[in-house]
Amino acid sequence: MTRISIYDTTLRDGSQGEGVDFSLQDKLLITRRFDELGIDYIEGGYPLSNPKDSAFFNEIRKETLRHAKVCAFGMTRRRGITADQDVGMKSLIESEAPVVTIVGKTWDMHVTDVLRVDLEENLAMIRDSVAYCRSQGREVFYDAEHFFDGLKNNREYALKTIRAAEEAGANVIIACDTNGGSLPEWIAEAMDLARSSVSAPLGIHCHNDSDLATANSLAAVEHGATQIQGTINGIGERCGNTDLCAVVANLGLKMPGFEVLEPESLGKLTEVSRFVYESANMNFRTGQPFVGASAFAHKGGMHVHAMARAANSYEHIEPSLVGNERRFLISELSGQSNVLAFEGGKFELTREQAVKVLNRVQELEHEGYQFEASEASFDLLIRRELGEYKPFFNRISYRVNSETDCHQDEPITEATLKIRVHDQIEHVVAEGDGPVNALDAAIRKALEPSYPILKEMKLVDYKVRVVNARAGTAARVRVTIESSDSHDVWGTVGVHENIIEASWRALVDSVEYKLSKEQQTPVGAEAVSS
Amino acid sequence: MTRISIYDTTLRDGSQGEGVDFSLQDKLLITRRFDELGIDYIEGGYPLSNPKDSAFFNEIRKETLRHAKVCAFGMTRRRGITADQDVGMKSLIESEAPVVTIVGKTWDMHVTDVLRVDLEENLAMIRDSVAYCRSQGREVFYDAEHFFDGLKNNREYALKTIRAAEEAGANVIIACDTNGGSLPEWIAEAMDLARSSVSAPLGIHCHNDSDLATANSLAAVEHGATQIQGTINGIGERCGNTDLCAVVANLGLKMPGFEVLEPESLGKLTEVSRFVYESANMNFRTGQPFVGASAFAHKGGMHVHAMARAANSYEHIEPSLVGNERRFLISELSGQSNVLAFEGGKFELTREQAVKVLNRVQELEHEGYQFEASEASFDLLIRRELGEYKPFFNRISYRVNSETDCHQDEPITEATLKIRVHDQIEHVVAEGDGPVNALDAAIRKALEPSYPILKEMKLVDYKVRVVNARAGTAARVRVTIESSDSHDVWGTVGVHENIIEASWRALVDSVEYKLSKEQQTPVGAEAVSS
Repeated sequence: MTRISIYDTTLRDGSQGEGVDFSLQDKLLITRRFDELGIDYIEGGYPLSNPKDSAFFNEIRKETLRHAKVCAFGMTRRRGITADQDVGMKSLIESEAPVVTIVGKTWDMHVTDVLRVDLEENLAMIRDSVAYCRSQGREVFYDAEHFFDGLKNNREYALKTIRAAEEAGANVIIACDTNGGSLPEWIAEAMDLARSSVSAPLGIHCHNDSDLATANSLAAVEHGATQIQGTINGIGERCGNTDLCAVVANLGLKMPGFEVLEPESLGKLTEVSRFVYESANMNFRTGQPFVGASAFAHKGGMHVHAMARAANSYEHIEPSLVGNERRFLISELSGQSNVLAFEGGKFELTREQAVKVLNRVQELEHEGYQFEASEASFDLLIRRELGEYKPFFNRISYRVNSETDCHQDEPITEATLKIRVHDQIEHVVAEGDGPVNALDAAIRKALEPSYPILKEMKLVDYKVRVVNARAGTAARVRVTIESSDSHDVWGTVGVHENIIEASWRALVDSVEYKLSKEQQTPVGAEAVSS
Repeated sequence: MTRISIYDTTLRDGSQGEGVDFSLQDKLLITRRFDELGIDYIEGGYPLSNPKDSAFFNEIRKETLRHAKVCAFGMTRRRGITADQDVGMKSLIESEAPVVTIVGKTWDMHVTDVLRVDLEENLAMIRDSVAYCRSQGREVFYDAEHFFDGLKNNREYALKTIRAAEEAGANVIIACDTNGGSLPEWIAEAMDLARSSVSAPLGIHCHNDSDLATANSLAAVEHGATQIQGTINGIGERCGNTDLCAVVANLGLKMPGFEVLEPESLGKLTEVSRFVYESANMNFRTGQPFVGASAFAHKGGMHVHAMARAANSYEHIEPSLVGNERRFLISELSGQSNVLAFEGGKFELTREQAVKVLNRVQELEHEGYQFEASEASFDLLIRRELGEYKPFFNRISYRVNSETDCHQDEPITEATLKIRVHDQIEHVVAEGDGPVNALDAAIRKALEPSYPILKEMKLVDYKVRVVNARAGTAARVRVTIESSDSHDVWGTVGVHENIIEASWRALVDSVEYKLSKEQQTPVGAEAVSS
């Protein structure tokens, strides 16, 4: 068994991704989660580059991590000075991180045209920087930037740079496909060349510009790399870094000669993936391999039917191995096996009831409904079909008005709403940025006195799709709403020719679902319960 | 040079993706775009599975495609009947598609446990189905489902199934990694086994469950496959199919022994990728290799600095090769060349004017506009920036009202509109199925007396997308409208917090574009022309 160590750079290279911005607090929380996951090395930042990164090292050194070692990242010393005079070097040592990762130039063109130093001085910069950090008692990882491009351009020089790092005492030498342009065959060949030049342990650091970061990292491991660098979810500059979720799952589940993380780790992958997305304020990538919400979602009726006969018929692994779950989507391609699979035994439907539900689903789908992203509306649909559903309020009427006049360019929107709750009439008016926002505000204004728990919930997303596009603006529209409280996220759907009425239906389902899951008392149910 | 043919299944396998739902109109438009791109085979659907797919074949056969062949997809015949009695087979032939793709079982477990037929009967089903479609004059592609898993489980039987297809006359035999679980080494080995068993051309069909679909497709090509099946953007069930954008770009730019699509094709990849996302009403994946908006976006200060010294220092390819563009996220340097490319010389913009237009585009994109699918709005934007644009009418005010009352469940919608056309005030009221429909009706009612030519145009499609989803119903929405007359189809866009105002803006652009292309006389221009 070869043990592969995992080096995470979510907090440094990951934060170079477009739109990614971690607070200091985020960075500390993520570090703890990664430590629990069993990640071996956590790169916390580039202490010289910004105050947040140096603050991170001040904070994290007060904590005792269970397993992971924290790493500080920096560049080789500047030209023409000694390493101990270099501010970057100093900041690495002052970070007190037990591991220092130094990046240096491998590609001769970068040395001469970008750094603008001569080739010999670059070798000295590598040697001095590694030796200095070693002399300060640190474990030193040497990142050979552009290793694969440099090797192509000037093989002899590229290999000299990593030999310089080795001679100065680097503990691991990491070959970086910085521009993400290499193909797996070249990665394999180049790793063999590296192995024939140095005897230090080798690592691999890939970017996903050619959609090959996972394959390239695995190819490198097959050719001697024992450290993989990457980020959770593959976030990072341009197309991102190697996605550690995919690499770790492939290594742990499909490559029997290798050992990675800890025995319990794989089962936590999905949770950690989502935690990082939440921290980065990014949307989940639903189709992400292994950990995405759709990774084990079955839509085709034929597939669902087959899954009932043999669980592995359309899944490459058992989803729980990576902490994910199987889902059955309800769509125009469904059979009753989807319905039974979808409700997951919650309602203990008989075969007859399942058929009844399926018929209703197909009717509604014909009208343009879709339940695959709207589990909450589907849940309510089943209750309604079973005849056990009591609404929490009844609509009497609404009116939504948007208007501009000659003095102002922006429209003003107002919604009035009259409903009956517990035999009382609520008649309210509210404004909003648009008709749906105004209607949502009116519903809350009318219901919160009776159901204060609704304050907990908020709308997270709102989508509109025309169902039969050929009819132009008279077409039917489908509105999908995603709502959340502190525990759950749920989806609801409404369809109508009128976008306002479609939105109303999705909004009502969202509120009804919240109230029913909190076991509030519906309208007309008091008599029964008293 | 080995030519690799590209088989696109966006319209069939792609539509199995969670949340993907193409209208018939979308499917026809996409087919035309794929034909222009130079895709060799376009799988239109599964004619038996739903009426939309069979309608697609009825429509597409009326059109003449430039290069692509349309393919119909189906399964082998059912057990115990002849192929010509099978409804699925019949629907394939009735589709009149010149190519028929038949999927059959390779994995013995699937034959016995899922299909529940004996192993010999499955071979007969394959043989009969392929032979029947060949006898009807079709080119037949045989998709060997679960080829890689089947081969592992029962090598001899798996190879028998593809030999059966070959003996019956299959023109291409496609090895499918249906569950997406294979690693590249196994793909390579298995393709060699297939090659040693059959002499028909081989193809590869991968899924991305292990984040290896691109690597696996390329490995198959290195081991003899000459057809690649996949979808644009990799959309599809679970984690999706092979992303043709990545595969085609890697083949065309990095693998000199292979030829793919047509010489001009790669430069259109980014545009086609975005067109598919727009049609599917899905968000772009910003970090998508080659075609993503962030694929050549540089954030790190060091990288931007280096790029100024050597253009290829942090890019694996020149972005324009795939129709994409370099972006600098810190300094807002940018490509006016894009603007020039987009307007295609129509306005003969000077350098200065291009910069002015670019600034306005960037401002609007910041607000949530997107011009990819809205050439008509972009055309108007240029005219407005050049100061040569005169509107055809001016809005004074509108009011849109939707209301229900206790006697009726369905809302009634009314729009009033006051505009100025040729110094006359038009004040009208109209009803509609919803607010946008009512507004559209009011615009027509007010304008048709002055511009009867508007009777020729109609709205074809209407889409809404939330731009900053995190704000829930108060988020900004982008409305995209597609309009047509007997000659043209054009797209327009409007963005606002209020969906009614956003729709108004897109509707107005649509009407203005129609009038300007028909060279009608705008408001205030009479004096000049008289």
